[in-house]
Amino acid sequence: MAASVRKVVDKVPEPTLRRLPWYLSNAKLMKERGETFVSSTQISRQINIDASQIAKDLSYVAISGRTRVGYQIDQLITVLEDFLGFTNMHKAYLFGVGSLGGALLRDTGLAHFGLEIAGAFDVNPDLVGTTIGGIPIHHSDDFEEYMKNSDVNIGVLTVPINIAQEITDKMVAGGIKAIWNFTPFRIRVPEGIVVQNTSLYAHLAVMFNRLNENKRNNL
Amino acid sequence: MAASVRKVVDKVPEPTLRRLPWYLSNAKLMKERGETFVSSTQISRQINIDASQIAKDLSYVAISGRTRVGYQIDQLITVLEDFLGFTNMHKAYLFGVGSLGGALLRDTGLAHFGLEIAGAFDVNPDLVGTTIGGIPIHHSDDFEEYMKNSDVNIGVLTVPINIAQEITDKMVAGGIKAIWNFTPFRIRVPEGIVVQNTSLYAHLAVMFNRLNENKRNNL
Repeated sequence: MAASVRKVVDKVPEPTLRRLPWYLSNAKLMKERGETFVSSTQISRQINIDASQIAKDLSYVAISGRTRVGYQIDQLITVLEDFLGFTNMHKAYLFGVGSLGGALLRDTGLAHFGLEIAGAFDVNPDLVGTTIGGIPIHHSDDFEEYMKNSDVNIGVLTVPINIAQEITDKMVAGGIKAIWNFTPFRIRVPEGIVVQNTSLYAHLAVMFNRLNENKRNNL
Repeated sequence: MAASVRKVVDKVPEPTLRRLPWYLSNAKLMKERGETFVSSTQISRQINIDASQIAKDLSYVAISGRTRVGYQIDQLITVLEDFLGFTNMHKAYLFGVGSLGGALLRDTGLAHFGLEIAGAFDVNPDLVGTTIGGIPIHHSDDFEEYMKNSDVNIGVLTVPINIAQEITDKMVAGGIKAIWNFTPFRIRVPEGIVVQNTSLYAHLAVMFNRLNENKRNNL
């Protein structure tokens, strides 16, 4: 296997990064069905993306397909999981144990994709000192102390918008290198800090708008 | 107010739809701080988006700013919430009460943004007949029956990838018009059906990748 896998250090375009998990889930599905090889043409038919685009995307992860038979499925899964970072556990602290924050603490699925939430922070005295999904909730004031002895470098932001920037600044000052922002607030960070925005509410807005558009057009 | 609000039926670009919730949260924040007017220049400084882009985006929602003083904040909030569909309650059924599905049922935040999950479907006998967050869980086989007497037109997809397409087909056959797809599987739907993909795992992949890139570059 080593021969056909090489380290690629080019910057991977975000659209490619967003499509790779589709290929991964498709490969897992094919494996479940007992297949051992899959070609980009086969993937293309199943998920409705151009085969040439798939081949181009997969060129980033440095796996070689064989003419006619395509990619070896087990290898494709291993290489994609590794490339996407799902096999390394990344540790995170979550800030704001409200409705969404609490829900994420309970979502054991994240751990299967490489994210371990090591602890949560809030100021609510009813929450501090308790656990959700086995994850301890600390007082926000103790964040810096916890950072000192930890290898956590990701912060999950699920606080109310009025403190989103303040908590972001606090995270960055404490040493957090990447922020997964679930708030609809556009946070500002210094250069070199990664921000991944996942506003469920923005996605809802897009969906509602498209739905109403179709209604108007009687689709 | 009526004079400055008009119905706009042009297709709104998705990037605009994704930015509008940022302006909404910013306006709410300004209101909290006691402000009554906000200009696109002020919003621009706070959230780091070109003022001209903000003005262009806001032209879709048909609110007029006044020279020098800008937009009236209360009106901006009302018009944006209405435009984004957060003031109308949209009913949804959720499919697949696993870890993420259960978490979404517990997330009361969705209702504040216009999404009411009216019921959930699963085949797990331990779950069917119970409720989570007050939402009843029915057997998947009863979905069509429930659709007959309901005004639900949105389906939330949180099933395992190996049945994602099958459940999608079932939803569409039952009359669902928009699917909020949380699986990393790329589902296929007939024309006229809205799909909103929100793969938390794809977002994780992007974040991990950027984080590792920065590490390599010693940022």
